[in-house]
Amino acid sequence: MVVNMYDIIIIGGGAAGMSAALYAMRGGMKTLLLEKISCGGQAANTYEVDNYPGFYNSPSGPELMEAFEKHAVKFGAEIKSEAVRGIENADGAVKTVKTRRNTYEAKTVIIATGASPKKLGIEGEEELAGAGVSYCATCDGAFFKGLDTAVIGGGNTAFEDALYLSGFCERVYILNRSKRFRASKTLTDRAKAVSNITVYTDIIAERFEGGGRLERIVTKNTETGETGCLNASGVIIAVGITPDNGIARSCGIELCERGFIKTDMYLNTSIDGIFAAGDCRVSPLRQIVTAAADGAVAATSAINYVLKGN
Amino acid sequence: MVVNMYDIIIIGGGAAGMSAALYAMRGGMKTLLLEKISCGGQAANTYEVDNYPGFYNSPSGPELMEAFEKHAVKFGAEIKSEAVRGIENADGAVKTVKTRRNTYEAKTVIIATGASPKKLGIEGEEELAGAGVSYCATCDGAFFKGLDTAVIGGGNTAFEDALYLSGFCERVYILNRSKRFRASKTLTDRAKAVSNITVYTDIIAERFEGGGRLERIVTKNTETGETGCLNASGVIIAVGITPDNGIARSCGIELCERGFIKTDMYLNTSIDGIFAAGDCRVSPLRQIVTAAADGAVAATSAINYVLKGN
Repeated sequence: MVVNMYDIIIIGGGAAGMSAALYAMRGGMKTLLLEKISCGGQAANTYEVDNYPGFYNSPSGPELMEAFEKHAVKFGAEIKSEAVRGIENADGAVKTVKTRRNTYEAKTVIIATGASPKKLGIEGEEELAGAGVSYCATCDGAFFKGLDTAVIGGGNTAFEDALYLSGFCERVYILNRSKRFRASKTLTDRAKAVSNITVYTDIIAERFEGGGRLERIVTKNTETGETGCLNASGVIIAVGITPDNGIARSCGIELCERGFIKTDMYLNTSIDGIFAAGDCRVSPLRQIVTAAADGAVAATSAINYVLKGN
Repeated sequence: MVVNMYDIIIIGGGAAGMSAALYAMRGGMKTLLLEKISCGGQAANTYEVDNYPGFYNSPSGPELMEAFEKHAVKFGAEIKSEAVRGIENADGAVKTVKTRRNTYEAKTVIIATGASPKKLGIEGEEELAGAGVSYCATCDGAFFKGLDTAVIGGGNTAFEDALYLSGFCERVYILNRSKRFRASKTLTDRAKAVSNITVYTDIIAERFEGGGRLERIVTKNTETGETGCLNASGVIIAVGITPDNGIARSCGIELCERGFIKTDMYLNTSIDGIFAAGDCRVSPLRQIVTAAADGAVAATSAINYVLKGN
């Protein structure tokens, strides 16, 4: 029943996967990109992208990702909408990639399955996402310049986000569900010393409200049950990020304790001939430009691997 | 006589430096970018850029770099044309950046001074650069599809480039000045086994010729002194790359044996509060997109450093 043999199979059609496809095609590799839904990844959910260098006219996420896809397709990338179920014979010279309908073989695989921010699952969250509700301070913080903004969470990211926002937002509120913070003492001490940051403990967000854009957060005290209201034009939800690591996990690739794929500088994973790129890997920053760079590096490493005939 | 105090001073206005400026400004940092000549870096010398993801219409290098600059300036980046002479008090909490005319102070410095490919310094090299003569197979190889192409050099990069080109070029010639190769045996064996790769030893290029585009390479045998002629539409000069590391070296930042700046994943150098981004650092791949990603990472690390008040 088999099979199409590829040099490189890329799993995931976000910024990392599409950049990898572009580099792989330019390197003359027979390449297949498998994307379970439609290309674009997390970026396609973004209302406005202000920080992908060179695109200074603030494209929407879908517009930018369409440009990425056009670019990969221009060089002949083959893209199929199929959900990958797993990789068999992962450590063999020929790896078998299975989707529901098909079986493909490849000399190398690039895993670019991405990650998604954890949601609170509260009223108004989905409706106001991109209209004041955000999951990434580095991406969206600049849209909240001069405004009152909240950060939800109590870990290092929440406190780093609050410090980041404090430099240009009017006021920054940190809402933490308990009295204890997962963040380091250095960070919590530093945040408490900043005049425009206020830390609230035992507080959760219960509902986001606003006419088309976020205007206020309805809160609840986890000890007393009291509800309250906080006026804010922006909120960063910083309660964690979940890598899409099912495929990597099932073929035994080494992950960090938070579930992200471990790689070296060349984006080799712990299995020979399998590379990881973008948000699904252990990485210092998760942005469109870092994912795109990862795609270029992973593809170049995969090309070298194929050409050296490992 | 002092001084303007900045949160972040970026040295170098290539893709890495301009991306860093964009991210630093969006993070609310008081930022200065110092560029010795004019912004654009190596990319500004590139005739056509086909592999910066999203820009699928093949902009020229100067066009793409102008877009980067507009992007940084849109967020208010201050850019000055001044050559940096050195960093004093590099490991202090406040670092002093000296140019010929001015003295600036900053809490952090991002070194993004770049690197340049070594030139052969032969006739026709400069005139035909971008018209068949190239220094980067990953960047320009795809322009030579179906054509006869040569690679000059005998190290790992030269052999990797030849293997890369062999997948889609008609014939690939490797020209090495001696009988010995610096490349690993794995690579030389592999290249010798590829049917469309020919390895010539004791051969140097003496002159590049062609009417507007490269057509042939005039060669010379280093043993016999005999001259010859090789028809080729493309040549990759892979005789090394020199990092611009004078500033880093003079303030004692740790370099690798080839002179590139060592960093960790967050692009910290060996000196607290000094970061490195782009071609000047030890890195797995040197492309516009990897430089741009480095700029984002280094700026984010610098922002965190400033905000934590280290």
